[in-house]
Amino acid sequence: EGSPKLLRLGILMTIPSRTIQKILQPFQRQEAGLVTELFEGSEQEIQNRMDEGRIDLALTILRPGTKNKTVSLYQEPYSLAIASHHPLAARKIISPTELANEPTIVRSRCEALSETSRFFTDHNVRPRLVYRTAQDERALAMVAAGVGFTTMPDHYRMTGVTRRPMKGYDLSREVGFIQSIHPAGEEKSALLDRFITLTRASPPDMTIGG
Amino acid sequence: EGSPKLLRLGILMTIPSRTIQKILQPFQRQEAGLVTELFEGSEQEIQNRMDEGRIDLALTILRPGTKNKTVSLYQEPYSLAIASHHPLAARKIISPTELANEPTIVRSRCEALSETSRFFTDHNVRPRLVYRTAQDERALAMVAAGVGFTTMPDHYRMTGVTRRPMKGYDLSREVGFIQSIHPAGEEKSALLDRFITLTRASPPDMTIGG
Repeated sequence: EGSPKLLRLGILMTIPSRTIQKILQPFQRQEAGLVTELFEGSEQEIQNRMDEGRIDLALTILRPGTKNKTVSLYQEPYSLAIASHHPLAARKIISPTELANEPTIVRSRCEALSETSRFFTDHNVRPRLVYRTAQDERALAMVAAGVGFTTMPDHYRMTGVTRRPMKGYDLSREVGFIQSIHPAGEEKSALLDRFITLTRASPPDMTIGG
Repeated sequence: EGSPKLLRLGILMTIPSRTIQKILQPFQRQEAGLVTELFEGSEQEIQNRMDEGRIDLALTILRPGTKNKTVSLYQEPYSLAIASHHPLAARKIISPTELANEPTIVRSRCEALSETSRFFTDHNVRPRLVYRTAQDERALAMVAAGVGFTTMPDHYRMTGVTRRPMKGYDLSREVGFIQSIHPAGEEKSALLDRFITLTRASPPDMTIGG
């Protein structure tokens, strides 16, 4: 387990697969013999595992006041995801009240779930729940299929899904690395440094893709 | 809840999002005002919900001896998913023993999980587990990133992932609709008939796509 070529990475469930792929692929190719262990979970699950010394680094949301060393990668708003063939998708910005009669998809592991519920309730909007899922990529595909709309971090993209800001819905998140406070050996430290340096040098690009 | 334009569909967690999208999108467009409620789960979770009369139809695995009416859609083998840049991806068929030193990704909701574990154990192969996930699309993206290989239903496709048969690994599944034994009203029955007819007329195509 003390192998210097072992990267134990925590990944937040609500970061797009494509983003994680774009971060891991170059490093996996650069480091011959690298083994990457992934642990996916919520912010709290990742923090707990880090406190236990079972992951070296986490790709997650950065919050003020953390005791760990952090490396910011990007800032990302939350926004509406709606089928591209839906009439509202033609608008530049959408009001929550326009969604009152639209079916909605709930992303059950979303860190902004309670703020989002409150936002709609504050506007007297109670959209009909048609699908509840822990899988963000699946939520996105069901938006494309016309099953319903959802709200999600803006970097989730898919053909057939239009992303639009929603009036008054001003949430955003900062995503980056959190480092373990457990001391790492010299070779592991060097490995982590190379990973962080490579990722910062070419941050995952957020353009749409297949 | 008795709305004639309400389709309550159970979907097996291990069916690709893209397949579900290709099945739902045409019907959603054909039926103005249709509301589709989705319930995703394991075979057993879907069967339970159907027995309770809470879903009308399920897109899932068909097994011999079911008491419900079924409609077969396609037959699908399980196969290996490996990074396209991996040397083994150049082979036509791969032996399990060649994977002995390769890190593996476990799809925790796979219905063939125990058979697959037994298959590797029977060949004295115990690949190193690097990632365990309930999200098949994420497993696929991590295969593309070079994190490890996995086994999965053959219709899961992604750029950067090569699908290959594995010697002696001859599992397959039959996917289709299971209908509820609870009686549906006339309009609901007609809606379900139109959905099944449309899906059979244009079965989801399984070619690679973005």
